[in-house]
Amino acid sequence: MLRLYDCLSSGNAYKVRLFLRQLGISFARVEVDVMKGETRTPEFLRRNPNGRVPVLELESGAHLPESNAILYYLAEGTPFLPDGRWERAQVLQWMFFEQYSHEPNIAVARFWIRFVGVTADKRALLEQKQQLGYAALGVMEGHLAKRAFFVADQYSIADIALYAYTHVAGEGGFDLGRFPAVHAWLERVRSQPGHTPISQE
Amino acid sequence: MLRLYDCLSSGNAYKVRLFLRQLGISFARVEVDVMKGETRTPEFLRRNPNGRVPVLELESGAHLPESNAILYYLAEGTPFLPDGRWERAQVLQWMFFEQYSHEPNIAVARFWIRFVGVTADKRALLEQKQQLGYAALGVMEGHLAKRAFFVADQYSIADIALYAYTHVAGEGGFDLGRFPAVHAWLERVRSQPGHTPISQE
Repeated sequence: MLRLYDCLSSGNAYKVRLFLRQLGISFARVEVDVMKGETRTPEFLRRNPNGRVPVLELESGAHLPESNAILYYLAEGTPFLPDGRWERAQVLQWMFFEQYSHEPNIAVARFWIRFVGVTADKRALLEQKQQLGYAALGVMEGHLAKRAFFVADQYSIADIALYAYTHVAGEGGFDLGRFPAVHAWLERVRSQPGHTPISQE
Repeated sequence: MLRLYDCLSSGNAYKVRLFLRQLGISFARVEVDVMKGETRTPEFLRRNPNGRVPVLELESGAHLPESNAILYYLAEGTPFLPDGRWERAQVLQWMFFEQYSHEPNIAVARFWIRFVGVTADKRALLEQKQQLGYAALGVMEGHLAKRAFFVADQYSIADIALYAYTHVAGEGGFDLGRFPAVHAWLERVRSQPGHTPISQE
């Protein structure tokens, strides 16, 4: 059986948990407490030397870190990854956008505000992250204004990757009311068969 | 003919320029001056609403941003992307590692030091980026200590993605002398057929 090194407060971990459920794949869930330093123990670093969740452990004992690489691995050959080479490239485009322009701003703002508190030395950086996070949401809004989903008008792992932290962006101080197309897309993602909320173990 | 919206100071753009040459694919190169705001003009934003280079323009007129998505698109069906599903997942793992844990620290430190100058308000953040950049180099060192290349012991787009900013990390204040396995791997990458330096137009 697959084993997922998971963390309920992490949107990156939620992507994989949600997708495994939508695929109907059984897995053992191992909660790793980032706040207690459990991603930096020697034991965990043998699974992922970069010290982050999620990590997927195969039955062979091999480990795969990086949420979006795990999504792509699980999606190959399923309807959640389009067949065409150009469409697959666009799925990757949006997943790299997510990790570079979206997550470091929206997820980090959420982490500071909700989980660790915004100390004085972080205020200027938080403002910058909120500005960049709003820019990322603006890019999504423009793209979704004429589309139901990110790529090829079908629900794919690009939507899962971007849903994870967008739907909790309010916890990072972002006002999603400014983005009606994003709001409507969040509803479409939530209505997919097998959808489960981030809080569900 | 393919057209590459390129920028000679950008390691992300270099990845694609280098790979197109190694594939022997002709392309038209359009230099975009990030420092002059040329990635934020209405004309450029029609090509990439996220306002970044590189962007690959196909003969159809379609555009693909995100350096690592472009690498993957170009690599499908070539020896630069391993055949196996597990090996492809590892290529993606390292490319997401590059964009999340490596580039935002090493490339940004280089950009500040070499191109824009480190103002007083950036000093604390630069220190943090150097710490995180050294951590990323440490992860690479550990992986390369027993391997010739990142995945499946063959030169792949994972190596191209990580080479781009690693080989100029010195310009971001990083001492690569601490990482002998990384140093030897840089030499192996440089000795690949068709390799061209970052400065070559």
